[in-house]
Amino acid sequence: MANKSQNWILMATAQTPTNIAVIKYWGKRDETLILPINDSISVTLDPDHLCTTTTVAVSRSFEKDRMWLNGKEISLSGGRYQSCLREIRSRANDVEDEERGIHILKQDWEKLHVHIASYNNFPTAAGLASSAAGFACLVFALAKLMNVKEDQGKLSAIARQGSGSACRSLYGGFVKWVMGNDVNGSDSVAVQLANDTHWDDLVIIVAVVSSRQKETSSTTGMRESVETSALLYHRSKEVVPKRILQMEEAIQNRDFPSFAQLACADSNQFHAVCLDTCPPIFYMNDTSHRQVLIISYIEKWNRSEGTPQFIRVGKESMLNVGTKVSYWMFYVLGDKSILQDAGIEAMKDVEALPPPPEIKGNIPSQKYKGDVSYFICTRPGRGPVLLADESLALLHPKTGMPK
Amino acid sequence: MANKSQNWILMATAQTPTNIAVIKYWGKRDETLILPINDSISVTLDPDHLCTTTTVAVSRSFEKDRMWLNGKEISLSGGRYQSCLREIRSRANDVEDEERGIHILKQDWEKLHVHIASYNNFPTAAGLASSAAGFACLVFALAKLMNVKEDQGKLSAIARQGSGSACRSLYGGFVKWVMGNDVNGSDSVAVQLANDTHWDDLVIIVAVVSSRQKETSSTTGMRESVETSALLYHRSKEVVPKRILQMEEAIQNRDFPSFAQLACADSNQFHAVCLDTCPPIFYMNDTSHRQVLIISYIEKWNRSEGTPQFIRVGKESMLNVGTKVSYWMFYVLGDKSILQDAGIEAMKDVEALPPPPEIKGNIPSQKYKGDVSYFICTRPGRGPVLLADESLALLHPKTGMPK
Repeated sequence: MANKSQNWILMATAQTPTNIAVIKYWGKRDETLILPINDSISVTLDPDHLCTTTTVAVSRSFEKDRMWLNGKEISLSGGRYQSCLREIRSRANDVEDEERGIHILKQDWEKLHVHIASYNNFPTAAGLASSAAGFACLVFALAKLMNVKEDQGKLSAIARQGSGSACRSLYGGFVKWVMGNDVNGSDSVAVQLANDTHWDDLVIIVAVVSSRQKETSSTTGMRESVETSALLYHRSKEVVPKRILQMEEAIQNRDFPSFAQLACADSNQFHAVCLDTCPPIFYMNDTSHRQVLIISYIEKWNRSEGTPQFIRVGKESMLNVGTKVSYWMFYVLGDKSILQDAGIEAMKDVEALPPPPEIKGNIPSQKYKGDVSYFICTRPGRGPVLLADESLALLHPKTGMPK
Repeated sequence: MANKSQNWILMATAQTPTNIAVIKYWGKRDETLILPINDSISVTLDPDHLCTTTTVAVSRSFEKDRMWLNGKEISLSGGRYQSCLREIRSRANDVEDEERGIHILKQDWEKLHVHIASYNNFPTAAGLASSAAGFACLVFALAKLMNVKEDQGKLSAIARQGSGSACRSLYGGFVKWVMGNDVNGSDSVAVQLANDTHWDDLVIIVAVVSSRQKETSSTTGMRESVETSALLYHRSKEVVPKRILQMEEAIQNRDFPSFAQLACADSNQFHAVCLDTCPPIFYMNDTSHRQVLIISYIEKWNRSEGTPQFIRVGKESMLNVGTKVSYWMFYVLGDKSILQDAGIEAMKDVEALPPPPEIKGNIPSQKYKGDVSYFICTRPGRGPVLLADESLALLHPKTGMPK
């Protein structure tokens, strides 16, 4: 060991976006490596609105790896955390900070312990892929701390082993998770289709209908679908590959009618496969069910005007249903300020309702009456970033414990 | 014309059962001839409980074809009624009744008009295939009146042109509608798999959750599924053929676990395909949705005991979801008299049932209250019969008008 002082704590803090799939990931071909049965495509959501912040710290004084999620210590013994930690450590490099007297050699990392603190500014396990942002942020922050030199694609393959959809959060904008062919998963990585400025008038409104945890976990649900659904294999082999190509084209051309139609059709098919599972899985609750009816009306309305119309905020909206929440996707033509007008003012009457307990302060939580807990109004956003401002760290720089 | 008197009225009254599909019919390959994209299998329900009664009458004094459904005159100008009337008339034969001075020659039938009165003893268009019983009864009664000599299979192909599932109501017990291959539909007929005494301890309880008319007609829904669902073709070509064989075997062996598992899986897949349709079709309302959850729990409960268990009335029930209503299928072990007790009293009994262990506390206990309109407790039943008792006729013997 080259260090004289044992008292230093080296930290890195990163912020990583979550993402919403518009062509769904449902079904694994390998449960340990988390390899999917089909490609998927997502939109990365602006981390200014929804994100995970993670601080990782290393010190020779840490006695074991520890992690705090939303302020509460959680176990790192699970296979998914262990996979990510192992994969990142094995790619660590020398780190030197002359000024602070920090000298860590590549081989030291296997023996050094880390502290991790992570915070989601939106409800965990409420359908917003908090695990996606979480594992992406963990892997990204550790990679920075440990001077890992692999590119984002390689990091995405590591994040994937924490949570499948996490790999898509390594990039901003529009992202494809390529299922890959290798049995070791090396080619099952995320690739960016377009960055976050490519389609800057696409707006996404997330209507969180329930912040309850879902009754069937994605892992269990996927396994049961793979084992029992008579339709899933056909979906993954025949339907999704065509939709992936169409969706890539729609994104490239900023073709909203095709984009919305594909996203809705794929979301519905995801729910269809869940229903075709034995026992059937219901991720749509009564509220999203009612909201799905809105798709139906909107589509009919679109049809009556010929080809699908652009959807305007306020009066008409396009609905897409996610795992447990409903997403309205708005395309704003012309004056984008209507978005603020419609988005905020329409919800005045329900603003008085208290936000769900998980919500801490900083996200807009305008609510609709009834079952919709709140709306989140956002847009495609950037990928992970390192936060230089040390005051934003979630661990105390002197103790390495949560602030 | 050989008749001296023009004042006679010749009548026939028939009673025909409805049926519940256990392997679903969803999707036509020919909309006019009503030819399906897959075989289907149904259970004919006991007409003592659910049936259509139809009286058909002919007289030289009738000026046009007329029909009354549940006491209200309806138009016969629709293609489906016209197809049935045309097909039956073309197969009519001489009818003689010396005593009453009635002599109708084969060729007379083209010029003679009929009066038809039909009555369903259950809600029309409430998911119980009233059109199945209705068209089956119309065709069967007209065939008797007109001395048509074709067998039930041939008649089923005519009834099919009124309403697809009507062909299955020409037989009692367990019935398969063979999709056939001919472009003219001649081999798209019903065949009996087993008669109504074959499985005499199978009991069916229909929980009518809503007597509202469905929002999307089957005809429209099927067309939209055929046009837009990416899963329906696979279902019809790959999934259903296997299930048909398995279901035939389950029926033959009176294998309730397989029968129930297949019926539930196929019902769920039907709803899955509806959801995969663009715009999506929701035949499950909130109530059947909630009830479908019960399938899931029941299946889990079954699993926890190893292989699926026989289901007993009262304490545990197997749920199958139909087009718009939910069917509970009970298998009665031991004392069949529980069935009678369960029939009406079951409403209360069912409400009082304790939930399976794993759902305790998880779902609100208002499960059935309010939303279930009523239960119908029935069993596999016989096919169409002619009612000899003239007092049961729905048309007045002197006027030929509804009583």
